[in-house]
Amino acid sequence: MFKTLAVVGATGAVGRIMVQLLEKSPITFEQIKFLASARSAGKTIEFRGEKHTVQELRPEAFDGVQLAVSSTPDEVAKEFIPEAVKRGCVVVDESAAWRMDSNVPLVIPEVNPQAAFNHKGIIASPNCSTTQMVVALKPLHDFGRVRRVVVSTYQAASGAGLGGTKDLIEGTRAYLEERPYRYTTFAHPLAFNLIPQIGSPRPNGYTSEEMKMVLETRKIMGDESIQICATCVRVPVANSHSESILVETEKKISVEKARELFSSFPGIVVIDNLDAKQYPLPLDCSGRDEVFIGRIREDISSPNGITFWCVSDNLRKGAATNAVQIVELLLRGHP
Amino acid sequence: MFKTLAVVGATGAVGRIMVQLLEKSPITFEQIKFLASARSAGKTIEFRGEKHTVQELRPEAFDGVQLAVSSTPDEVAKEFIPEAVKRGCVVVDESAAWRMDSNVPLVIPEVNPQAAFNHKGIIASPNCSTTQMVVALKPLHDFGRVRRVVVSTYQAASGAGLGGTKDLIEGTRAYLEERPYRYTTFAHPLAFNLIPQIGSPRPNGYTSEEMKMVLETRKIMGDESIQICATCVRVPVANSHSESILVETEKKISVEKARELFSSFPGIVVIDNLDAKQYPLPLDCSGRDEVFIGRIREDISSPNGITFWCVSDNLRKGAATNAVQIVELLLRGHP
Repeated sequence: MFKTLAVVGATGAVGRIMVQLLEKSPITFEQIKFLASARSAGKTIEFRGEKHTVQELRPEAFDGVQLAVSSTPDEVAKEFIPEAVKRGCVVVDESAAWRMDSNVPLVIPEVNPQAAFNHKGIIASPNCSTTQMVVALKPLHDFGRVRRVVVSTYQAASGAGLGGTKDLIEGTRAYLEERPYRYTTFAHPLAFNLIPQIGSPRPNGYTSEEMKMVLETRKIMGDESIQICATCVRVPVANSHSESILVETEKKISVEKARELFSSFPGIVVIDNLDAKQYPLPLDCSGRDEVFIGRIREDISSPNGITFWCVSDNLRKGAATNAVQIVELLLRGHP
Repeated sequence: MFKTLAVVGATGAVGRIMVQLLEKSPITFEQIKFLASARSAGKTIEFRGEKHTVQELRPEAFDGVQLAVSSTPDEVAKEFIPEAVKRGCVVVDESAAWRMDSNVPLVIPEVNPQAAFNHKGIIASPNCSTTQMVVALKPLHDFGRVRRVVVSTYQAASGAGLGGTKDLIEGTRAYLEERPYRYTTFAHPLAFNLIPQIGSPRPNGYTSEEMKMVLETRKIMGDESIQICATCVRVPVANSHSESILVETEKKISVEKARELFSSFPGIVVIDNLDAKQYPLPLDCSGRDEVFIGRIREDISSPNGITFWCVSDNLRKGAATNAVQIVELLLRGHP
């Protein structure tokens, strides 16, 4: 069907999982290329029984590549993706560089698959904390029209890349051994601590991560009237983001109805039995591709509110899984 | 002024801090007694240069005691506090046993000091997660009338007592060394994980901890019309609870006004400079007696909302400090 697929940023925290997912995916291609920064070029990646050498990410690396999935820092995506597109390559990009560009569809295959087919060379995959929330919001929106969302996140160290995970693990070891540790990825110690800032400050007092949850959600849902207040917090969890979400809808949604809507939506798994102490836990959801929902209950502070707990592997559905699902959607050719 | 003070539960996580605080307090008394369960009786506590033997908590232990500060499991408080009161002792109780009793004032000295003087022998100190939130709500309520609160907590292991702290530290060590660890206090692993349940299930799907934040807040504020939706989550932090709080008020409160109201309220410290990466962190707030507030910003999802991040040492202002402040208030004799 098509000749060459490229994985850009193949050695990063998300890229590694993209490689694993593509390996198991039914997608076929004649050739696969693994690209990364000069620092990682020359490394070897084994894929479907063959050894591949990681090549340096340069414009010419996209010559002859039809499709690429990319997970790089934003600056890298800003620079190289137009070079790929110029060479006829379609890029599914996991970075934040192109998400809010009006020419770029921002896609979650369960939510707005049709948008993927209106691309002009770039399709963006949303921010990790946004993706899992929007998957949860979609069935509620379809049934009762979401008017307002209040969300507080509990975001894992892996969201800051391999350096974030190292900071958490080494910082925790050092704390327990009463040794000093110099954090390189986080601005404050994360071991046994919380950092109520993810991303950079915005003029309105929110962080870039918090505003992504507002702006990306509206774009994916295609509804600029949804009001969202987000607080994003880094927690000393290695992997999987969790979110405490309160949703107000135009039409009242009962707990039973919400549970039914969530359960029948593709990509959502409901784990919700408080009496049996069952609800999604980040340790349990790591390595899984779905969005997990529990603690579903009526918002007792508003007439049409529902509140719940939502956990998902931020490197998977929050990043690699969603990007690979977009590739599969494109190759399938229809929603 | 008065003869005998007793500290009940003196060897527990909160009791130990009560002892430290009383040692430095200007309160004077002829005699002090330390009471604890049979398991801890016989231990020695040094206080203001003298050694004291911990006595077993029995009804007769309150003979001749005028005032007691107590931090015990609820069942113990249910059983022994009436015995103390029967013997003429006034008890400041940190447990949940008596808080919602209509004969028992529930007091935060900065918020409703006058209530302390209407006691009938028992004065209750609120739940840790409630106390810090209510201290933050009070100046907003006085200025703009609080109508609704949405709160998500990030609660430390120490809130579950000494066993909780041990579970977190030993569980984390075991995780890093890839050894199994059997948690004794928590129902799920807490190392690098989150547990979205604190307390027992209530019929409406909330937990007892979440409903404490609703019911205790209304009682302390003396306003049953305040609507509250709480989500309480245990996080792998050793000490100090954090809360993401959104408040809707009748009268609009600007960010500048909120900062001014918080700053001038006794017991609140504002740390709020996102550009300089300054906001309250649980590691920094541990061992401090105040409530710390940062990330103050307009709620962009409602017309009259304000949202912020609130951290406080749950063993101190959330427990021991508040109880000792109630004792000081009683001895001062006026608000």
